[in-house]
Amino acid sequence: MTREILDSTSTPHVHGVEHPTPANQAADKASPVRAAAEAAKRAARQIAPLAETARDAALEAIAQAVERATEPLLAANALDLVAAAELKAAGELSDATISRLRLTPAKLGEMVEQVRAVAALPEPLGRVLAATELDENLELEKRSVPLGVLAVIFEARPDAVTQIAALALKTGNAVLLKPGKEVEHTAGVLVELIRRAIGSVGLPEDVVALVLGREEVAELLGYADLVDMVIPRGSKALVEYVQRSTRIPVLGHAEGVCHIFIDASANTELALHVVDDAKRDYPSACNAVETVLLHESLAETLLPQLAMHLTANGVRVLGDDRVCALLAQEGIDAGKVEDWHTEYGDLTLALKLVSNLDAAIAHIHRYGSAHTEAILTEDTVNAERFIREVDAAGVFHNASTRFADGFRYGFGAEVGISTSKFHARGPVGLEGLTTYKYVLRGVGQGAGDYRGPEARRFKHRKRSV
Amino acid sequence: MTREILDSTSTPHVHGVEHPTPANQAADKASPVRAAAEAAKRAARQIAPLAETARDAALEAIAQAVERATEPLLAANALDLVAAAELKAAGELSDATISRLRLTPAKLGEMVEQVRAVAALPEPLGRVLAATELDENLELEKRSVPLGVLAVIFEARPDAVTQIAALALKTGNAVLLKPGKEVEHTAGVLVELIRRAIGSVGLPEDVVALVLGREEVAELLGYADLVDMVIPRGSKALVEYVQRSTRIPVLGHAEGVCHIFIDASANTELALHVVDDAKRDYPSACNAVETVLLHESLAETLLPQLAMHLTANGVRVLGDDRVCALLAQEGIDAGKVEDWHTEYGDLTLALKLVSNLDAAIAHIHRYGSAHTEAILTEDTVNAERFIREVDAAGVFHNASTRFADGFRYGFGAEVGISTSKFHARGPVGLEGLTTYKYVLRGVGQGAGDYRGPEARRFKHRKRSV
Repeated sequence: MTREILDSTSTPHVHGVEHPTPANQAADKASPVRAAAEAAKRAARQIAPLAETARDAALEAIAQAVERATEPLLAANALDLVAAAELKAAGELSDATISRLRLTPAKLGEMVEQVRAVAALPEPLGRVLAATELDENLELEKRSVPLGVLAVIFEARPDAVTQIAALALKTGNAVLLKPGKEVEHTAGVLVELIRRAIGSVGLPEDVVALVLGREEVAELLGYADLVDMVIPRGSKALVEYVQRSTRIPVLGHAEGVCHIFIDASANTELALHVVDDAKRDYPSACNAVETVLLHESLAETLLPQLAMHLTANGVRVLGDDRVCALLAQEGIDAGKVEDWHTEYGDLTLALKLVSNLDAAIAHIHRYGSAHTEAILTEDTVNAERFIREVDAAGVFHNASTRFADGFRYGFGAEVGISTSKFHARGPVGLEGLTTYKYVLRGVGQGAGDYRGPEARRFKHRKRSV
Repeated sequence: MTREILDSTSTPHVHGVEHPTPANQAADKASPVRAAAEAAKRAARQIAPLAETARDAALEAIAQAVERATEPLLAANALDLVAAAELKAAGELSDATISRLRLTPAKLGEMVEQVRAVAALPEPLGRVLAATELDENLELEKRSVPLGVLAVIFEARPDAVTQIAALALKTGNAVLLKPGKEVEHTAGVLVELIRRAIGSVGLPEDVVALVLGREEVAELLGYADLVDMVIPRGSKALVEYVQRSTRIPVLGHAEGVCHIFIDASANTELALHVVDDAKRDYPSACNAVETVLLHESLAETLLPQLAMHLTANGVRVLGDDRVCALLAQEGIDAGKVEDWHTEYGDLTLALKLVSNLDAAIAHIHRYGSAHTEAILTEDTVNAERFIREVDAAGVFHNASTRFADGFRYGFGAEVGISTSKFHARGPVGLEGLTTYKYVLRGVGQGAGDYRGPEARRFKHRKRSV
């Protein structure tokens, strides 16, 4: 299981270091993985205090290095593609994966552009999030700072390497990268380019490092003293494996079981358009809708109309007994829903009739993943109740669940989507890769000065920021 | 180990329910602990959307219920005090614990006042943290909401029961309370009063519930599907046990090893005052200083002066070989530091000479707990470097580490202090018991409308909030 999830390689190594004993070495402080994580922590502390200009200079150096290295990158990618072709012949790899894996000069150009776009984002560090005058000459400031060391486990995409490295560098973090096995040659060359580019502007190369191998990742997940956040990008199985295997905070979501509730007063055209978009725009996305709940007053009007529209557009419709029976009367063949928890991830949609808003909310709380939930209604009272009462990262009124996305939200970049309530919830931008520190500037005050008969009094005057 | 840490009771039960089989039942969905956690989750979802007035009414009902119940509370407390006296006679309980345990009419009055003070705090929910016009008629809002269900494991203090319940209710959360064993009778009566008071204003009683018993807490820590945050208040051993035992996010700190670096240019009077305050104001607090690092240019001036001042005021001074030798020349007897990681928690202070600011920061990063670190200097360049480079929840210039506290920071209430970088860092106010949701209001837009040749364009216009 673990082996499959982590796309283990048969020759495990850590940025080029041979690793003869692949046994679990979580306690071995001399291991190359531990050394890489310690180097990353040192590098993180070196870059954390640097000015934005220094980090942006490193990003520009990376962009230029990738621009100049088209040939070696395509050559490394060719090696990955040969191995991928063999796996495809054995039926172990899809065309879609190979297409994501393939580098072209055009794709390299996009990667370079993306790095420069990250450099151009507003500075995420050193922002004063709050400030309070505690007393005369005693000023408190809450200031955004990097998290420290990130570990990102991601899919077989070369562009993810430059993107993640750029996001980490922009936010002053170090990052340990574990790419999908199929992209290891390409990722190896890319990371080497990135490290040299970072070094060329005087920053520590160890800000970015590669970790390869199943045992190595398992070991890394044990270093809660060195790694500040893990971001697993990929399958539900990968995310759940990581969540189970580490005490390091995990940013991510195992699944997105999103619902749309169509209320009695919903506008028909609007409902057809929004459900169509939420299902068909990109069915494998986590913010695609899996279940549509319809108010039962729509059983003989919108229900068959919606089912007809969807099936005509290639969507397989499922329902409970009542929905199946109603649709059968209209000549629509709907399958039976087996489990309302299912994230179909394809052109399949479950339909259910509910007696009212309360029943819809109860269903969503029971089967949803607290990702994104929408109500379609012309009744503003019901809309506001849904918004207040539904416990999810996103609650939408008359809009497609597909808007739950960092770029659409205007964050400039998306680090991931979180269904946890901790630290960051919903689509996460650069802010999710930062934390804060409290800075207090005084003139020699002690806490005891504010106690007793001659005590000074706190002012606690909020400063506008 | 676990038994000691959790102050297990010999008659484990969950708000009054007898629990005949104390075996670990994490998987037993019919267990009373699971039932209590499920009831808390339902109650949390019921109170989350309520207006502030409803939650404040419940707080006022609690205040009045405690005011009216002086007699039964003192009677229950007498039972706890009898058991405590036996433990004290056996040398298992300190006078300090008994003093914290003891209820008096005056203390009850303070508890009531504290509940009303929490009610009077600014509304933590429904605050618009950010807002963006994504497009015409497509408005995004980031709004503060409760976390859900809290589990708080705390010391043998009756006032903690009302305080924690009040903070949870104010922030729209449900809370499962595990009090120290010594206060179980008092806590039982208090929680019953609180539940009835909550019920009397029409809110679900299950917003507050008691969980008693070692096995029961271990079981509760397994319910990551029901509990959103655990707050362990107490010993380092308790915090570490909880961190090891659960996948639920933990808010807290295992230790506070705080440092003060006295730079070459520090003002002598200021340094003596701040170090004195940081060590002697409340030595067992986590924000008390444990190690003072002095610039080596102060070896023959401030070092002996400081050591003299401290020893004259009851502080035991420790040092490395060099410090011990220097102090011996001045007739000051300093012990040898055994481990620079130590949180003494009493009137003991370790002293060390360092060659410069870099050496001070390196020592702090190596031995500190990232709680609160201070520099005393008249050199603003060094002060700003220290503030930028030290990785800790609090970085102070010319002020005592003892200011790291929610009340002194002006938060109105303190939920705890976090040395984690996730979710909340440093002293945590009501905000730490909240998360947020994204609310999107549209008029039927789909994500596909923003793609292709006739695409609409996002505006992403930030609204001021």
